[in-house]
Amino acid sequence: MENSKGKRAMATTHATELFPTVAVTMCTGETQANLASLITHNKETPNQCNFPQHGNIMDNSIKKSVTKSFNIPKEDCIMQLPWVVNNVKPSREDESQADIQENIQQMSLAIVKCTEEAKDKLAQVITHNVETLSQRKSHVLGYPVNQEFDYDALAPFLHFHLNNAGDPFTGSSYTLNSSKFEVCVLDWFANLWEIEKGEYWGYVTTGGTEGNLHGILTGREQLPDGILYTSQDSHYSIFKVARMCRMKCVTVDSLVSGEIDYVNLKASLLANKDKPAIINLNIGTTMKGAIDDIDRVLQTLEETGFSCDRFYIHCDGALFGVMLPFLKQAPKITFKKPIGSITISGHKFLGCPIPCGVVITRVGYINTLSRNVEYIASRDATITGSRSGHTPIFLWYALKERGLRGLQNEVQKCMMSARYLQRRLHDAGISAMVNKFSNIVVFEKPLDEDFVHKWSLACKENIAHVVVMQHVTIEMLDSFVNEFIQKRRIWFKNPLCLSEDIGAENCACIAHN
Amino acid sequence: MENSKGKRAMATTHATELFPTVAVTMCTGETQANLASLITHNKETPNQCNFPQHGNIMDNSIKKSVTKSFNIPKEDCIMQLPWVVNNVKPSREDESQADIQENIQQMSLAIVKCTEEAKDKLAQVITHNVETLSQRKSHVLGYPVNQEFDYDALAPFLHFHLNNAGDPFTGSSYTLNSSKFEVCVLDWFANLWEIEKGEYWGYVTTGGTEGNLHGILTGREQLPDGILYTSQDSHYSIFKVARMCRMKCVTVDSLVSGEIDYVNLKASLLANKDKPAIINLNIGTTMKGAIDDIDRVLQTLEETGFSCDRFYIHCDGALFGVMLPFLKQAPKITFKKPIGSITISGHKFLGCPIPCGVVITRVGYINTLSRNVEYIASRDATITGSRSGHTPIFLWYALKERGLRGLQNEVQKCMMSARYLQRRLHDAGISAMVNKFSNIVVFEKPLDEDFVHKWSLACKENIAHVVVMQHVTIEMLDSFVNEFIQKRRIWFKNPLCLSEDIGAENCACIAHN
Repeated sequence: MENSKGKRAMATTHATELFPTVAVTMCTGETQANLASLITHNKETPNQCNFPQHGNIMDNSIKKSVTKSFNIPKEDCIMQLPWVVNNVKPSREDESQADIQENIQQMSLAIVKCTEEAKDKLAQVITHNVETLSQRKSHVLGYPVNQEFDYDALAPFLHFHLNNAGDPFTGSSYTLNSSKFEVCVLDWFANLWEIEKGEYWGYVTTGGTEGNLHGILTGREQLPDGILYTSQDSHYSIFKVARMCRMKCVTVDSLVSGEIDYVNLKASLLANKDKPAIINLNIGTTMKGAIDDIDRVLQTLEETGFSCDRFYIHCDGALFGVMLPFLKQAPKITFKKPIGSITISGHKFLGCPIPCGVVITRVGYINTLSRNVEYIASRDATITGSRSGHTPIFLWYALKERGLRGLQNEVQKCMMSARYLQRRLHDAGISAMVNKFSNIVVFEKPLDEDFVHKWSLACKENIAHVVVMQHVTIEMLDSFVNEFIQKRRIWFKNPLCLSEDIGAENCACIAHN
Repeated sequence: MENSKGKRAMATTHATELFPTVAVTMCTGETQANLASLITHNKETPNQCNFPQHGNIMDNSIKKSVTKSFNIPKEDCIMQLPWVVNNVKPSREDESQADIQENIQQMSLAIVKCTEEAKDKLAQVITHNVETLSQRKSHVLGYPVNQEFDYDALAPFLHFHLNNAGDPFTGSSYTLNSSKFEVCVLDWFANLWEIEKGEYWGYVTTGGTEGNLHGILTGREQLPDGILYTSQDSHYSIFKVARMCRMKCVTVDSLVSGEIDYVNLKASLLANKDKPAIINLNIGTTMKGAIDDIDRVLQTLEETGFSCDRFYIHCDGALFGVMLPFLKQAPKITFKKPIGSITISGHKFLGCPIPCGVVITRVGYINTLSRNVEYIASRDATITGSRSGHTPIFLWYALKERGLRGLQNEVQKCMMSARYLQRRLHDAGISAMVNKFSNIVVFEKPLDEDFVHKWSLACKENIAHVVVMQHVTIEMLDSFVNEFIQKRRIWFKNPLCLSEDIGAENCACIAHN
């Protein structure tokens, strides 16, 4: 094979060769109409500099040194390098009331102008959207997202691009990072799930999906021919991960509660005894908040002859992973049991403007995954590589600002309010279920699309749910139930039997009530 | 196989059963020392409520209704539900000057307290870190990250958890989203790379790695037994993706410029003629900013007998994907050529506090990837599922605020300043190279670790680089070069020959100068 290295001459070029002589040729990417109008404009004034000279972003000394360096006549440089159009005032026409109205009412977000948009117009669009979001926020019931947070104190960090590229424990050569904050957050979770510093490895992810991907991938690297087992009530990301990572996936039945069906799991394991098992456990499930019982799964593995070196357990603790430690008698999520990894979502219970999460695993597994990356002077065992430096600071603040007692109070509030909602629905003759350590209230699916949309309800087949998070007040729940009862009269004929979905004891149908 | 559905009785519980009677039992996750002290404290006051009654987050009416609902005596409820400790004033001891100093100087970030941290202490830590970052920011030269942005106008959006779960074009049932902004941003990029609305699909990613993962995965789903080809100068994420997705990966040699070696590519393709080809092209490479020539690769595919249905091309345009359209004579990145996907990083040229990116592909490929997800009332063809709603707004603002002409000015500034830096290094007798359409200046690796760290330089083997982004001023470059020259006298003996790394014409060694 011929080595062509070095054969090709590399031309280093003067900057002047690179730029088009008129601005218009660079306007690829503009809408056709806008582009056409710009071309016409430039054709009409081919030799004029169309840009105002004030408000340059480069001061004169810099321009002078650049100009000097390339021996370009000063005038030519200005002609060719129309540095800035920042201070161009929009024309009266642009500012007309009609245009502003259009901007606001029709949410004119399209990016079609060749020149920049005036700041006050952008501000109007922003204000309008923030108002809309505020209105919607008071009705968000269906998703496990805590909307009660205030990170105003962290706003100054938005002036930096922070990047925790690579391994949080080794740092990287990119100095604008928050690795120290990240390690504090990881230590907190390692402590919560009872694994010693030095024994664990982890990082702040972009959310539950990345955590699941990392956990299951870690399992796959340990047991390359392992089969992934997960219940049919698992989050959709688990099935996506299986496909992405080219793993055989066995979907195990679920119980009515949403919990994995241990009998079916046992049968599935026995049917594939020759292959190691990678098991995803839900702590708890997305729709019903059911918690797969780690101890029972471990017992099943023992009964079916899977020794410790032939299984890997990943725990998807998206919402409950942070909550359970604050609940008496709740199943213990701990690395003292032979599990491989746990992940949670940071924007769920803790609350964060941006999706994020945490994954913790045993440090021994990580060497198989990591690669030294000289470019960032770090090693990389993460999925995303370049990672947010802001989300670890948000999580750090969330934990530090509240303390354990603050978190405990919030867990209690959510649990109490969830049971309040269930009681109110039962009292109105509506089938409803709450699993034991859950703040997710599952009930008869409303048959009114507008109602479902208004309250951001998550639905699946015959059921819908409300996840009672910190921002959900009793007033919100009352308002929701009252409207539900009122609207239900329209579509309601006979109560659908939901015993298959949420159990006979929670069903309000004629047969079970 | 026995179906155990419904066999297990589900107990719905009263909230009172769930909570420990004393707060301490919930303090799992606390540091051992703190936990021990808390246990001691609680043992001493087992029947007292340790929490102040002021500053409750639940107002009395809510507490009353919850209490009433569960028939819990009001007093008991307060005992068991110490709602809040928000207004606890830190003791004098806590506030001592020594402690504050420790907080600031030793960056006491650890989250070890059971109760929440006082706001003023947090503010001190934040201020200290923001100052440190500001100092560092003026020296960030080695990474392709634009630090010149101001998104203060978008701060109000930080009061919401925005989530663009699922497909940006179908929306989802989670109403706090920015899908409209996202679609505008995608339309802009589709236009830039010349693919019609309706013909393309895409989304805003968490960064370049996710974009590469998505693009290559899209290729794999089209050509399941395809082999991935990528040059040795490719970003480390490409090799990671290959491994994650269980794809055979052929590493192709690079030319001295960093560009893929077309002769070696041809030989590799011929050696694997029986398998389809999935080709990653760098637009441009991470270290040297070299651009793989799409046309030459297409010609190579034709010569080796790969018809259009037997190859898929993904373009990793992390930095240059946005810049090239603004440069005269630059290779055209367009969907008019038979490519499958393009990705860019949003935090690189455009600038964004949080890592993000854009991936655009042909809509026809997406049906193979997507799954309907009833839970979010959307379909999912993304990697991360739950996705940031903020980053699309940042990108929208970045594009709208600048317009095409603003972007054009910035590209010009970066290109000019990069050539200024190369000239200054050459003048000082230091080997240095800039590829034709690149703002990355590659030079002799400094042998002083502190110097490398101070300027956040990225190094690889014998070379280092500076990526001249928008925030890099001529003053910064002068300051960098002057310090480089000064420090270099310490380690400098004879100039290392770098002809193998950056070409003989850029080498300042005795043989080539």
